[in-house]
Amino acid sequence: MAKKLTPRSEDYSKWYNEIVVDADLAQHSDVKGCMVIKPYGYAIWERMKDVLDGMFKESGHMNAYFPLFIPKSYLSKEAAHVEGFAKECAVVTHYRLMNDPNGKGLIVDPKAKLEEELIVRPTSETIIWNTYRKWIQSYRDLPLLINQWANVVRWEMRTRLFLRTTEFLWQEGHTAHATEQEAQEETRRMLDIYAKFTEGWMAMPVIKGDKTESERFAGAESTLCIEARMQDGKALQAGTSHFLGQNFAKAFDVKFATKEGKQELVWATSWGVSTRLMGALVMTHSDDAGLVLPPKLAPIEVVIVPIYKGQEQMDEIVDKCREIETELRSAGIRVKLDADDSKRSGWKFAEYELKGVPLRLAVGPRDLANNSCELARRDTRTKSFESLDGIATHVSTLLETIQSDLFSTAQDRMVKNTVNVDTWEEFQAAINNEMFVMAHWDGTSETEDIISDETKASIRCLPFDGDLTPGVCVKTGNPSARRVLFAKSY
Amino acid sequence: MAKKLTPRSEDYSKWYNEIVVDADLAQHSDVKGCMVIKPYGYAIWERMKDVLDGMFKESGHMNAYFPLFIPKSYLSKEAAHVEGFAKECAVVTHYRLMNDPNGKGLIVDPKAKLEEELIVRPTSETIIWNTYRKWIQSYRDLPLLINQWANVVRWEMRTRLFLRTTEFLWQEGHTAHATEQEAQEETRRMLDIYAKFTEGWMAMPVIKGDKTESERFAGAESTLCIEARMQDGKALQAGTSHFLGQNFAKAFDVKFATKEGKQELVWATSWGVSTRLMGALVMTHSDDAGLVLPPKLAPIEVVIVPIYKGQEQMDEIVDKCREIETELRSAGIRVKLDADDSKRSGWKFAEYELKGVPLRLAVGPRDLANNSCELARRDTRTKSFESLDGIATHVSTLLETIQSDLFSTAQDRMVKNTVNVDTWEEFQAAINNEMFVMAHWDGTSETEDIISDETKASIRCLPFDGDLTPGVCVKTGNPSARRVLFAKSY
Repeated sequence: MAKKLTPRSEDYSKWYNEIVVDADLAQHSDVKGCMVIKPYGYAIWERMKDVLDGMFKESGHMNAYFPLFIPKSYLSKEAAHVEGFAKECAVVTHYRLMNDPNGKGLIVDPKAKLEEELIVRPTSETIIWNTYRKWIQSYRDLPLLINQWANVVRWEMRTRLFLRTTEFLWQEGHTAHATEQEAQEETRRMLDIYAKFTEGWMAMPVIKGDKTESERFAGAESTLCIEARMQDGKALQAGTSHFLGQNFAKAFDVKFATKEGKQELVWATSWGVSTRLMGALVMTHSDDAGLVLPPKLAPIEVVIVPIYKGQEQMDEIVDKCREIETELRSAGIRVKLDADDSKRSGWKFAEYELKGVPLRLAVGPRDLANNSCELARRDTRTKSFESLDGIATHVSTLLETIQSDLFSTAQDRMVKNTVNVDTWEEFQAAINNEMFVMAHWDGTSETEDIISDETKASIRCLPFDGDLTPGVCVKTGNPSARRVLFAKSY
Repeated sequence: MAKKLTPRSEDYSKWYNEIVVDADLAQHSDVKGCMVIKPYGYAIWERMKDVLDGMFKESGHMNAYFPLFIPKSYLSKEAAHVEGFAKECAVVTHYRLMNDPNGKGLIVDPKAKLEEELIVRPTSETIIWNTYRKWIQSYRDLPLLINQWANVVRWEMRTRLFLRTTEFLWQEGHTAHATEQEAQEETRRMLDIYAKFTEGWMAMPVIKGDKTESERFAGAESTLCIEARMQDGKALQAGTSHFLGQNFAKAFDVKFATKEGKQELVWATSWGVSTRLMGALVMTHSDDAGLVLPPKLAPIEVVIVPIYKGQEQMDEIVDKCREIETELRSAGIRVKLDADDSKRSGWKFAEYELKGVPLRLAVGPRDLANNSCELARRDTRTKSFESLDGIATHVSTLLETIQSDLFSTAQDRMVKNTVNVDTWEEFQAAINNEMFVMAHWDGTSETEDIISDETKASIRCLPFDGDLTPGVCVKTGNPSARRVLFAKSY
């Protein structure tokens, strides 16, 4: 705890890893690529989950649970899907261990080989659509609006805590519809819900748009995404919503009887966000002193720290702090009183700063005499003295202010760092300056690849709210229908 | 839906499977031994989870998340543990698939073989204690009170929906303590929480006790359990709480510095309940007409069904039903109005009976005239007519009555079917009569095995509240310290 974080300006990536570990969010496990999510980090994820789950249910979705394992043959049923997901996955080949007859410990029992290998799910379209075939007979069974909270595994060679791990936690929605239009609407509805969550709760502004063909989900007709800008200028894809057309219905033969008695293929969507959002949260708001959390997702919104010398002062001041704690808790504020006498208050200040608690409320002898307290905002690191009369109302208002200030700050930063460029020289300079670049592109995957090879910047999306004026491609000079968003990315 | 369930008296096991499938709780997947938990079943599990999670947090526990995969070598570190869990598990040996060069589809890439195989967690003691070594340095880090909600895999040859599946969902608590006494107290505290949950929420009475040595968790010093009696007379182990002594601390070298600066091994507990509870819930209350749910866990507590002929009656009656729906919802009751005009009311009655909705509220033309409604209890299948004045209060009270009646009925049945026996003939007769049998036992595993071989009954537990008068063993005539509980079991 005493040790200082590496400043962002020195090594952003190192700063990120240190925050995640030192603020007790997560750590690497001994299992390659898999992380341990620590209680404090998990508490934030739980809040994210609860809020999102409420939003899904409000929009008519129900949760269900499908098997962890996918038979190898299922993956092959959708041609594009298998290319995207069969390559790096955990394969279960046996179902038993035995003692080595040569006394060398445990070995795989060669007799316990599976007839067909099982894949640990990298995503669940195939196992779910295989089930939907039995659930969907008629138009009356549609729409089918289901979500699953689960762990998934994608074998990754280079991993980073939360951002890219072999196992991660996520939710995956899988819906089935009678018409293309309904499925398209659902795809967009869920993207909007994701944006509402990231902006309203994470205080993280996002740009909504379409992915290009080469960045689409394997098996999708179109992929919508929300892209956020991290403090180092890189884009982070924070959520995706896929219109799957009838691809999975075809692959798994899922048809329904229309009102008129015709048999038709079902239309599908899928959409997901993951523990990657934890990484996005860290990188959007935090600073060189540690984590900065938006109040709406903070496990502790306010920490109360008593300041005293000697037993007598302690008793009096801690009593007052308990009163304040009760008052704040009654007002629905998540509050912690840290009255641990074995730690100095300076240590506590640094600790709760590191952990991103939005507001610190300190009470010392003079405050006690004046019926006041010191309030310190984590985001701006500014202090003010406030009367204890009506403290709960004041704290609630201040927490709302912090929440909206965090969003404004992040949004101002994104707007300030987003530029329109029209020449290749400007383009390279802007990308080198860590900008979000709105530029014309000729619409071909070839040009996309060339730009990416030369600059490491990719097309993050075709923003819904983007500039639709035609122009000429920044790289080839060929005609372009509209500007698209380029950036380096996580 | 139209088809009738097999009566319990005819084939209890078939009846169980039919209820689980027909009431939309779960179904088998194509992946051997793995189930799909359907939305209605998952909604019940979610309620169980929420309640238990609240109880864990109230008693000071925090959630965290540990990797799905366990390196093979970890399993071997605790001698008893490996015997219990290494035998039937899913083994990941490769991390990539490739296209068969002979064009025969996807095959495992032989070059992508793991150096050390990974086991899909059957339980997480080993991976967690390997992590705790880094988390625990001093007495200040203790107690460490952590819970995880997760999926686990135990390769099962014979599976039954919810009761025994290859993959299942559960929670596993893993705590670390400075003293043996504290760990013992935690073991008991969590068992009491489980019993509070099964009795207070599931309306399922349980017998608390100690497992015999041969039934203990692999790696535990003692295992406490709660045992419930299903309607067919079999016992179902509904939850277990293990005192692990210092076994895992030794195996993973987890020591802490005491206040006095000495290095000591940490004391451990672990405890868990799983989706097996869903099976227990079904088998405790349901009848030949379908599922019976205790109101506290029912996703829908009250279903409102309008009864009418013709459009005009429909409009008027559905309007009234909407009023009632709003009133009940405002009172915090989980209510559903089924105004689907394409289904007959008779169909709806049968459907909600099958799904175990505790209370049905029907409004027909005569009710409308009288400002009344018909209330039908699912548990007793009795009906009453009630005024719509103050209907929310009446319904709330009735739901509480149903909850407590379900518990009393189950408890009466258990008490009536629990007997003390003192001779071997009585013992065999009682076991054949599907009784819970309290009998003397000489305390040896040999006798336990003999009894089990001859009667299929095992010692479910040494009940905490049991008869502690000494006697002679029902089988061998050797001295016995106390009576223990025998029964056939799931």
